[in-house]
Amino acid sequence: MEYRRIKDQDKDDNGDGSGAGVAAADDIESLRSGKAISGASNVAKLGGSSFDRSKWQQKSIVTLALTILTSSQAILIVWSKRAGKYEYSVTTANFMVEALKCALSLAALSRIWRSEGVTEDNRLSTTYEEVIVYPIPAALYLVKNLLQYYIFAYVDAPGYQILKNFNIISTGVLYRIILKKKLSEIQWAAFILLCAGCTTAQLNSNSDRVLQTPFQGWLMAIIMALLSGFAGVYTEAIIKKRPSRNVNVQNFWLYVFGMAFNAIAMLIQDFDAIANKGFFHGYSFITVLMILNHALSGIAVSMVLKYADNIVKVYSTSVAMLLTAVVSVFLFRFHLSLAFFLGSTVVSVAVYLHSIGKLQR
Amino acid sequence: MEYRRIKDQDKDDNGDGSGAGVAAADDIESLRSGKAISGASNVAKLGGSSFDRSKWQQKSIVTLALTILTSSQAILIVWSKRAGKYEYSVTTANFMVEALKCALSLAALSRIWRSEGVTEDNRLSTTYEEVIVYPIPAALYLVKNLLQYYIFAYVDAPGYQILKNFNIISTGVLYRIILKKKLSEIQWAAFILLCAGCTTAQLNSNSDRVLQTPFQGWLMAIIMALLSGFAGVYTEAIIKKRPSRNVNVQNFWLYVFGMAFNAIAMLIQDFDAIANKGFFHGYSFITVLMILNHALSGIAVSMVLKYADNIVKVYSTSVAMLLTAVVSVFLFRFHLSLAFFLGSTVVSVAVYLHSIGKLQR
Repeated sequence: MEYRRIKDQDKDDNGDGSGAGVAAADDIESLRSGKAISGASNVAKLGGSSFDRSKWQQKSIVTLALTILTSSQAILIVWSKRAGKYEYSVTTANFMVEALKCALSLAALSRIWRSEGVTEDNRLSTTYEEVIVYPIPAALYLVKNLLQYYIFAYVDAPGYQILKNFNIISTGVLYRIILKKKLSEIQWAAFILLCAGCTTAQLNSNSDRVLQTPFQGWLMAIIMALLSGFAGVYTEAIIKKRPSRNVNVQNFWLYVFGMAFNAIAMLIQDFDAIANKGFFHGYSFITVLMILNHALSGIAVSMVLKYADNIVKVYSTSVAMLLTAVVSVFLFRFHLSLAFFLGSTVVSVAVYLHSIGKLQR
Repeated sequence: MEYRRIKDQDKDDNGDGSGAGVAAADDIESLRSGKAISGASNVAKLGGSSFDRSKWQQKSIVTLALTILTSSQAILIVWSKRAGKYEYSVTTANFMVEALKCALSLAALSRIWRSEGVTEDNRLSTTYEEVIVYPIPAALYLVKNLLQYYIFAYVDAPGYQILKNFNIISTGVLYRIILKKKLSEIQWAAFILLCAGCTTAQLNSNSDRVLQTPFQGWLMAIIMALLSGFAGVYTEAIIKKRPSRNVNVQNFWLYVFGMAFNAIAMLIQDFDAIANKGFFHGYSFITVLMILNHALSGIAVSMVLKYADNIVKVYSTSVAMLLTAVVSVFLFRFHLSLAFFLGSTVVSVAVYLHSIGKLQR
């Protein structure tokens, strides 16, 4: 099978591959942490109301990191497109992202082991009961990515970008149902606004075509949104189930299965191409940058899920989408549409209402 | 001067003229009551917390009436357009609307006088101190309508429809400053959403052109929004200044000055045409319906300002705009755009948040 070019067609979707785009952090085969956060395990242990402030700080830092990494992701993609065509295989890049995250988790762990010694919470070995749930998110993403090939029979790529905003709603609903966490009425209103605002910001003169999507297209878009939302919420459940457990260990196991599932996808889809042209065929400096960015974004998502939640993750990646557009005005002389301004206004009000809603709960 | 056809160009603006449209109730040379509301003066006198429920009912009824009248206004316009060209003079129609409202106010008053007798609150005679403020709203609208001719040098008609949404913000700000009434944080957020949602619902493929509006265009749009907002807020101040005063008397005086200012505009702009072709030249059944609708809408606006406020009025006319579009799907086979659905969602959430915000204040 030929090296795929889905990245050209499907600008802002894919697991962690270098072809990902604007909303790539939605797709979290990644969802895990690592690297340079040796203090994190301590803070996680502390808890308690007297540490609310340091918790809040940590939450803010990981959220900011995710926002910046996600928006720079999209910018890297535009940059790489301008630089020429992609020649590398997306599946090898996805595999490399998982491998890099795995390596970063191990590096962070080895630092922790040296400073704190091996404890019950940071040792790598695990039980069957603990590890059995870890392949589930990666498996869900695999199914979702397979479905992705078929949805393009019913929707074009820009239409798919619009439909992907269902992810916001599905994440909110599954977050409520599975994690049993409550959002206030105002926060629900804010979440609907976030979805409407993001979609508005993406409107262009052809967007109305999405209304002609056949029933199968809508159904698949909803199923994909549910799979994506479920994977995110399930990852949060895994990570939060044992709060004292070091996040790098949790990530390591998530990434190991991520590597395994990506290896399967790679062998099925690109075996011939890899055998003929080599694993790293077509890799460039920008490919490496994109893999690095995706690995760090994945780790940031994981951190957000550990110290905040899926709701914060959705807000963070949505704001990142808007930031990307604004930065692109300066970098690539993009023109912002009136719809973008209106959508950004609605998203900003949604962010404000979400924070207000929390206080008044 | 020739009979103008601004109604064709400027679909949804004008004072009370038959050329008005979607957001016509914004333009309230009208703003007064009358007709079949002989009980109204009683309720106004009652006040007090034990009557909250009947007040709420009254508020709901006038708001509903305004919403229905405003949306049927726009539908009448589409209908009349399909029926053929306009041949009548807008200024004579505007004058007729004022005259009709005046007559309806007097009719309502005469019923009240018969049932209750003439009292201090329902007698028509007034003092210089009371009546001196009554010409101000009509004068403000005259200035605004004059400016309207010049703004089309800088903006096209669809662009002007977009810019008219500044009215929402200006009304909110002037309501706060002049009437010194507070909105909660959530209600402010809702008001911004209302403005963004209404604008989103009106987006079409050419809307981005409005971003190229020159500075003078923006300035004039803002000045016109301030004039319109000020007129609305000032009318509310006049009507609410003496709550026990019968609203029909207040309306009568407002409409008398409305007639006077419209007569001036009529003579300046259309004197030749009226002299040559006659006052009622080009009037059709639908013209009469439109005048009737505008008169009733004007009275409904006045009722809303007496028993509710400008904020309710803005929500009511905004929701009317959305209703119009939905009804048009069935009547005229309009196609709704994705932007319309998104805008409607945002407006609906805004309405919800406004009511929630009130409770939590």
